[in-house]
Amino acid sequence: MAADHVIGVDVGGTKILAGVVDREGVLGARRERTTPVDTQEALVDALVEAVEELRDGEVGAIGFGIPSTIDQRAGRAVSSVNIPLVDVDLRARMSERFGVPVAVENDANAAAVAEWKAGAGRGTQHMVMLTLGTGVGGGLILDGRLYRGAVGAAGELGHVVIEHDGARCQGTCTGRGHLEAVASGHAASERASELFGPAADAHRLVRLAQEGDASAVEALREIGRRLGSAMGGLVNVFNPELIVVGGGFGAAGELLLAPAREVLLREALPPARDVVRIVRAGLGTAAGVVGAGLVAFEALDSAASGAAS
Amino acid sequence: MAADHVIGVDVGGTKILAGVVDREGVLGARRERTTPVDTQEALVDALVEAVEELRDGEVGAIGFGIPSTIDQRAGRAVSSVNIPLVDVDLRARMSERFGVPVAVENDANAAAVAEWKAGAGRGTQHMVMLTLGTGVGGGLILDGRLYRGAVGAAGELGHVVIEHDGARCQGTCTGRGHLEAVASGHAASERASELFGPAADAHRLVRLAQEGDASAVEALREIGRRLGSAMGGLVNVFNPELIVVGGGFGAAGELLLAPAREVLLREALPPARDVVRIVRAGLGTAAGVVGAGLVAFEALDSAASGAAS
Repeated sequence: MAADHVIGVDVGGTKILAGVVDREGVLGARRERTTPVDTQEALVDALVEAVEELRDGEVGAIGFGIPSTIDQRAGRAVSSVNIPLVDVDLRARMSERFGVPVAVENDANAAAVAEWKAGAGRGTQHMVMLTLGTGVGGGLILDGRLYRGAVGAAGELGHVVIEHDGARCQGTCTGRGHLEAVASGHAASERASELFGPAADAHRLVRLAQEGDASAVEALREIGRRLGSAMGGLVNVFNPELIVVGGGFGAAGELLLAPAREVLLREALPPARDVVRIVRAGLGTAAGVVGAGLVAFEALDSAASGAAS
Repeated sequence: MAADHVIGVDVGGTKILAGVVDREGVLGARRERTTPVDTQEALVDALVEAVEELRDGEVGAIGFGIPSTIDQRAGRAVSSVNIPLVDVDLRARMSERFGVPVAVENDANAAAVAEWKAGAGRGTQHMVMLTLGTGVGGGLILDGRLYRGAVGAAGELGHVVIEHDGARCQGTCTGRGHLEAVASGHAASERASELFGPAADAHRLVRLAQEGDASAVEALREIGRRLGSAMGGLVNVFNPELIVVGGGFGAAGELLLAPAREVLLREALPPARDVVRIVRAGLGTAAGVVGAGLVAFEALDSAASGAAS
């Protein structure tokens, strides 16, 4: 039985998006709910409910994209910066619960797979994706496949250091001066509060900048310049064809990317500097759920080839 | 004809080391000379002479490890931070001159291949190498092979930004706050001059620290802590099994690596943080020439399989 449909579940810091996905990465029925962040059990229960709502007989596998570092040896969520998933064997629990193959992937890795196979990165072999959401996620397509590292924890591009001994990172991360501490939606909201009062957030900051407010433009420019330092380093490390920028905060677009490009040109060495293009993600908020579906197909095909005799 | 020997040439900022290398990475006869840094032609002439000195009928290929960014599409040295090689088609010139297959590889990439196949990284699939010499080089073994990126310019790990808008990098690099600006032998020599007078250099700094001089120990500790910020970021990006530290300045050993590990533990996320080991390179100053030889064998085998009919 080669199933035509899987369920992808994209677990964000604020909401869970579940959807039916086909092999071409086309998204069918979908459901959205708020992410419970009080306890791990409440969150796992919400994931089960999200799947139950969409499940029918044709669903061959389930994929979860979660904002966590993952140990793929056991399908375990090791730690999460913005949600309460710590040291939980999500793959085993979910495959036992639903009786189908289950994939667990970092959410930004999933988004990178989606953009590569069905979005802005189609046709490339070397692609770096940065997802600017509540946190900053990353995904790496190297030599034409998703790079996962020794145990599946690679691609945490929000946790490169761009300011040695700098400001504390978010949540449980003990690092300092990480990209996530300056270029995430969360960091932008903090800056918005400082400038425009406690009720202002990243959305307001971007809207004000789009309306021409000089201090909002300057705040986004400073964030964009730091993003450019990180991008310049990534270009020197990966020599990618493409850097794809996605995520809710990434929607600030050229307000971030123009200053980022300016600094990138200073930081990156030729010829890598002259090869790379910086583009916006093509799939919008669907990238996470589509990518979770595409890694579910990978788990399905892997289980099928393992079972063949 | 499957040749048993090749010539590897390691081009450093201060000296050129050429040697005969076999398929197991064992180094035979070798010759050393000073690197001419005044003009490109003088440097290219010195490379030709270095090969001529060692060449005999059994040499099947030649490999050059050069401290340059490379465009592998044409075997071209695009730019170099410490030597006068700019936009020169070294592969074409040398294969025309010697009539055998020629490989041109970044020197730190070559060292990484050597450590991976014949040194500290044997048996690993995911290895990051940092070469702390006059500059800071890098090499990446990902999923069991050398990662080169879109055109061959990947792995410039000395040019990750660890201090946004920080100090100017070395030579022709326009970047700011790069690892190379703080953790290279050149940077250590500058610090030594500030502390111990104009004649002091990185070697003196390391010797004084080994003898217990408190300000020398502290200077190396500060460099090591910045190295740790870069390593922490690299662990989050690559989730490697191993980081191998080589190069002349890398010989400072635990004086650099102990503070680096301390900061790495703060910066890196689990589980990648708990998987990685930091080790000294195993091949010493031979890594570059051995690696240049190993990539020469790659060029030889590739030419042989292309010619087979």
